[in-house]
Amino acid sequence: MYVREVAVIGVGLSRFGERWDAGLKELMAEAGLHAIEDAKITSDDVEMIYGGTMASGSFTGQEHVAALMSDQLGFKNVPAVRIENACASGGSALRLGYIAVASGIHDIVVVGGVEKMTDVTSSEATSALGGAGDQEWELFQGITFPGLYAMMARRHMHDYGTTEEQLASVAVKNHDNAFKNKYAQFHKKLTIDEVINSKMVADPLKLLDCSPISDGAAALVLAPLETARKYNDTPIKILASEQASDTLRLAERDSLTGIKATSIAAQKAYKHAKVSANDIDLAEVHDCFTIAEIMAMEDLGFYKKGEAGKAVADGETTLQSKLAINTSGGLKGCGHPVGATGVKQAVEVVWQLRGQAEGRQVKDAEIGLTHNVGGSGATAVVHIFGRSN
Amino acid sequence: MYVREVAVIGVGLSRFGERWDAGLKELMAEAGLHAIEDAKITSDDVEMIYGGTMASGSFTGQEHVAALMSDQLGFKNVPAVRIENACASGGSALRLGYIAVASGIHDIVVVGGVEKMTDVTSSEATSALGGAGDQEWELFQGITFPGLYAMMARRHMHDYGTTEEQLASVAVKNHDNAFKNKYAQFHKKLTIDEVINSKMVADPLKLLDCSPISDGAAALVLAPLETARKYNDTPIKILASEQASDTLRLAERDSLTGIKATSIAAQKAYKHAKVSANDIDLAEVHDCFTIAEIMAMEDLGFYKKGEAGKAVADGETTLQSKLAINTSGGLKGCGHPVGATGVKQAVEVVWQLRGQAEGRQVKDAEIGLTHNVGGSGATAVVHIFGRSN
Repeated sequence: MYVREVAVIGVGLSRFGERWDAGLKELMAEAGLHAIEDAKITSDDVEMIYGGTMASGSFTGQEHVAALMSDQLGFKNVPAVRIENACASGGSALRLGYIAVASGIHDIVVVGGVEKMTDVTSSEATSALGGAGDQEWELFQGITFPGLYAMMARRHMHDYGTTEEQLASVAVKNHDNAFKNKYAQFHKKLTIDEVINSKMVADPLKLLDCSPISDGAAALVLAPLETARKYNDTPIKILASEQASDTLRLAERDSLTGIKATSIAAQKAYKHAKVSANDIDLAEVHDCFTIAEIMAMEDLGFYKKGEAGKAVADGETTLQSKLAINTSGGLKGCGHPVGATGVKQAVEVVWQLRGQAEGRQVKDAEIGLTHNVGGSGATAVVHIFGRSN
Repeated sequence: MYVREVAVIGVGLSRFGERWDAGLKELMAEAGLHAIEDAKITSDDVEMIYGGTMASGSFTGQEHVAALMSDQLGFKNVPAVRIENACASGGSALRLGYIAVASGIHDIVVVGGVEKMTDVTSSEATSALGGAGDQEWELFQGITFPGLYAMMARRHMHDYGTTEEQLASVAVKNHDNAFKNKYAQFHKKLTIDEVINSKMVADPLKLLDCSPISDGAAALVLAPLETARKYNDTPIKILASEQASDTLRLAERDSLTGIKATSIAAQKAYKHAKVSANDIDLAEVHDCFTIAEIMAMEDLGFYKKGEAGKAVADGETTLQSKLAINTSGGLKGCGHPVGATGVKQAVEVVWQLRGQAEGRQVKDAEIGLTHNVGGSGATAVVHIFGRSN
């Protein structure tokens, strides 16, 4: 039973990118200490840690990551759990943190996400990421994630006339936004031609249709809304937190042109938050590949099926639009340290709703949404946030 | 806020051992379908899955394991989260399931634990398990888990006069119990001499002081106690569910002869359950190494510091004793598929409290405890269970 409203009272990010200067511990500390400082809490206030990481074992040899987070941040003896749901690990960690506070089990909890991906070769990374799908029936048979999303893209193009230029326009927009985000992995604007002429990875997806391999961490602090102002003058409310699953195997889904788990989680979230897709001012969506942003725009109800590609290409989702998408630069431009992504999306929305998003601030942002996907759609997590004043 | 009592209404195990006949999916199905059948629920009843696995990525290449569990058990679109806390993954998964039902967020939830460890070489397995400690400061420097627990054993012997024979008596008792458990990895009784003369692994721990590398899965179904009898005639109450953390690094602990996280979690659990250590009829404790059972007996308050070794050797914790310890055979005799262990401990206690433990039934068992440890003690989870009639 949800007995009270929940607010985000502190947020922090590490710089995203190829962080040769930092391991898991340093990344956690960079993001976590920012969040704690931002929330003006002390380590004694924290009752529980939820830490999202996807494949720290394969990437670094380190499991037991939430306990390490607790240890590293100086929370002595505070219980911690690591949450893993592939690239939705961060979103799922946030959801469990939300449940703990909303149900009155805990008051102050810390939600963290981290991934250190660049200490292995790119083929080792591709293989580790393949564990997000069905290892035996997909990865072992030779298909990697670019291949899975390429099939979804090809079908979307076939059914709805979505074009390579429309896909490329997602990358261009997100690199534009990342250019204004000091935490982003890439500070380089792209053109449609550059994306379309970049190296083919899995037809029709080129290198610049794909999010990168990244290191990074994100953290936030949750508290009951009723006491949040003790810590922070601009608490941001979590209006809804929902999650759904689907088959791990792409071949067994009802459709290749959308992610059903997203639609289910979104419909529940809109209902719980008492808002509609129309009310959302900005959304951080899971653009692991450019096609994924287009499907998300449709699955979240922002656009009718088949109309999202044209909308991005027409510039309907920029920082100046009625609905701004991936203001942080998204996974494509800001980077995608997989376990950190779901938490980082929430950090960006909090900054936007507080009016602290610097050069990429969306005007009068009141309601924001985050959308975090695991695998090719076996998990989807949707959160909706609102200003509390 | 805990608004209601929680009951276990169904349990299931796979056979533990070197399961060349089964992968992750088959193990999950074997345990999960037993639990569902035992609970007399249908897949439509299930609202959430909490799945514990420690290092499925390193062992099998498969992450996103809870979504796979949901998929494999036929729970379409039911949200799932994987919980990882090293060898306490199962216990932590159970704790989150408990919180969800006790707080009224969900009614019927499934808690699963699984590990498939035998598809890699033993040096790969040792390395994967090393991720439970601090990878950079312990494993990378050359210390493995037998080495960490050997240091704890050596210090316990130094401070309290604990002997190699006393350590060996833990293994002998647990193999005696496993002999009566059809799910156990080992059906071979041991003698003190066999243990002491087995190959040295990390002085003073020999091969037969160490739990094995195992494949296996465990599952249970939770429901609010108030409606539990709709599904099952003998619901078992969860009287307490508590967890604590400590530093990942053994070198930074207050003491080497006990696990502080265990003491903290146990004290909280006794208080919440309104029972004392004296009231416990049986306990499944985390005997990853024989010394760990002796430390657990002391940390859980069953024996004074330094007195547990003698107690085991004197036969005070057998199936016929006032307090029976590791009736299933424990990690040592029944096997230790790491992510499954915490859930399997609960399954054993449920069988004992229902009177369904066959040849190893403890007479008049009314209150049982489970104790699940992650790493060398960075996480400890304690649950207390009671009969509901």
